[in-house]
Amino acid sequence: MSDTTSGTMSETTVLVLDAAPPAPAPRLGRLTGRARVLHADASTLAEQLPLADALLVWDFSSDAVRRAWPGEGRRPRWVHTASAGVDHLMCPELAASDTLVTNARGVFDEPIAEYVAALVLAQAKDLPRTLDLQRERTWRHRDTRRIAGTRACVVGSGPIGRAIARTLRKLGITTALVGRTARAGVHASEDLDRLLSRADWVVCAAPLTDETRGMFDARRFGVMQPSAYFVNIGRGPLVVEDDLATAVSNRWIAGAALDVFEDEPLPAESPLWTVPGLIVSPHMSGDTVGWRDELGAQFVELFEAWAAGRPLTNVVDKKRGYVPGH
Amino acid sequence: MSDTTSGTMSETTVLVLDAAPPAPAPRLGRLTGRARVLHADASTLAEQLPLADALLVWDFSSDAVRRAWPGEGRRPRWVHTASAGVDHLMCPELAASDTLVTNARGVFDEPIAEYVAALVLAQAKDLPRTLDLQRERTWRHRDTRRIAGTRACVVGSGPIGRAIARTLRKLGITTALVGRTARAGVHASEDLDRLLSRADWVVCAAPLTDETRGMFDARRFGVMQPSAYFVNIGRGPLVVEDDLATAVSNRWIAGAALDVFEDEPLPAESPLWTVPGLIVSPHMSGDTVGWRDELGAQFVELFEAWAAGRPLTNVVDKKRGYVPGH
Repeated sequence: MSDTTSGTMSETTVLVLDAAPPAPAPRLGRLTGRARVLHADASTLAEQLPLADALLVWDFSSDAVRRAWPGEGRRPRWVHTASAGVDHLMCPELAASDTLVTNARGVFDEPIAEYVAALVLAQAKDLPRTLDLQRERTWRHRDTRRIAGTRACVVGSGPIGRAIARTLRKLGITTALVGRTARAGVHASEDLDRLLSRADWVVCAAPLTDETRGMFDARRFGVMQPSAYFVNIGRGPLVVEDDLATAVSNRWIAGAALDVFEDEPLPAESPLWTVPGLIVSPHMSGDTVGWRDELGAQFVELFEAWAAGRPLTNVVDKKRGYVPGH
Repeated sequence: MSDTTSGTMSETTVLVLDAAPPAPAPRLGRLTGRARVLHADASTLAEQLPLADALLVWDFSSDAVRRAWPGEGRRPRWVHTASAGVDHLMCPELAASDTLVTNARGVFDEPIAEYVAALVLAQAKDLPRTLDLQRERTWRHRDTRRIAGTRACVVGSGPIGRAIARTLRKLGITTALVGRTARAGVHASEDLDRLLSRADWVVCAAPLTDETRGMFDARRFGVMQPSAYFVNIGRGPLVVEDDLATAVSNRWIAGAALDVFEDEPLPAESPLWTVPGLIVSPHMSGDTVGWRDELGAQFVELFEAWAAGRPLTNVVDKKRGYVPGH
């Protein structure tokens, strides 16, 4: 246990679940004098958890919270995770508790939308093949695809999915948004197969919950058009990876890009690395320069509201596993 | 000489400078009964030119017209090229003649704008490096760039440059358009160096003329920011290729993408193929599925206006070498 600010017993204690180097620690200088900041890693979290009033899950891909939470002792009244998804974090005991859970809603929306646009355009313009041909010093003209006038289906109607839809629409792509239930501008999940069967671009931006786990399986890839392109920037387990590999290898669909995986980092021996037509990227779709500073600043802002007893934004519905939307 | 439609001597004769296979011939079925259509290639153009009332330059990258034009005999009253640029075509004798020259203005604007957006986003999101790392089965997270809030300078204020500017602006990029002279929404070329020095993205979409040849040289690459990315979708000779290779190799700028070259196809022995950070593509930025049909239909439409004595659109200012804009 390290005490990085001088504090008294009456002060609020913020515990940070640190990320492994080279990831930097959050910049929490603005909490000086207002909170005692302690740091834990996965191995020390269980023993320090009873000391914490608030927990900042900086190592957002760790499942240490889920493992430590059911243990003995006092529990923090507020848990904030520096990620959009809370799937690594949640456990029945945390869900049943009075502890408030907040997420990093907002930080990743526009960066991820740009990333998805990059993948859609790269596929339409056959850019990976251009790079392959360049390595062979081969001049081979191809006709490529327009994206204006094509159709996208974005699965996940939270702020990330909505930002993706806005960006694709700006590029002239007719974009349907699919959520759990129908509401203004959002199709219900019952419409999913129909929308998938007409889409040129399918983008998975759903939260990982019991309902969504494995939703993209052989049957759903079979529903898509042979010219369709699939992108997953949500969570790995939303996709049955073997089924996707089969679908792309056998040209059930034209190609895919995965930024998230069942196991991260993706093991070097994974067959996914070498499926022709599949782009593998290292869970970075939302991480644009300055993202960690933005996450730190967002936590400080939430801390100020919380410490003052004001209502918090970004409060996760712990039963559903995401922040309920408009 | 082949006569593909039955015709009488009083009929109008359209001569087509064919492109080499595998490029298909233009679909000119709609001219049946209204024009005699003859076909030439580079070796037979000179002898057939005196027979033609109109010339369709289907092999738009050939310089056969420029070579054949100064010869003996009657010359067509109208020349249409299935390209935006007329640089391969023009010669002093054609420029001085009464012959009307039209181009394919309009067909390539939006496709090229999408292509440029693809390159800008691929660079911002470090996609070529992602593909390299994938081949090595290496998981390496990087922070990438936002494009919203960055600045572009698009050189060339014709319909292609304007379409590029519109698309980049939709993506949140502050975009300056540079033309020969200042007008509404267009900076004069005197502003170019100042705009280049602030741009994150520099896109060359200028026509190739005596004024623009070699405009992107060592001095201009030196003006750009080290983080700047350069894209050329105009014509190869707008860029001094050795200077660009030096600029990219020595990290004067962050990278570049060339779709057009001094010599096309780019020879296999060209050092450009292997400059790290330089993307080489085979002059295809505007060629989306159906482009040749669109070019054929555009010619037929112009033919109908021309045959009826109506004024033509897309008329090139032969002295300037492009269709003067708004």
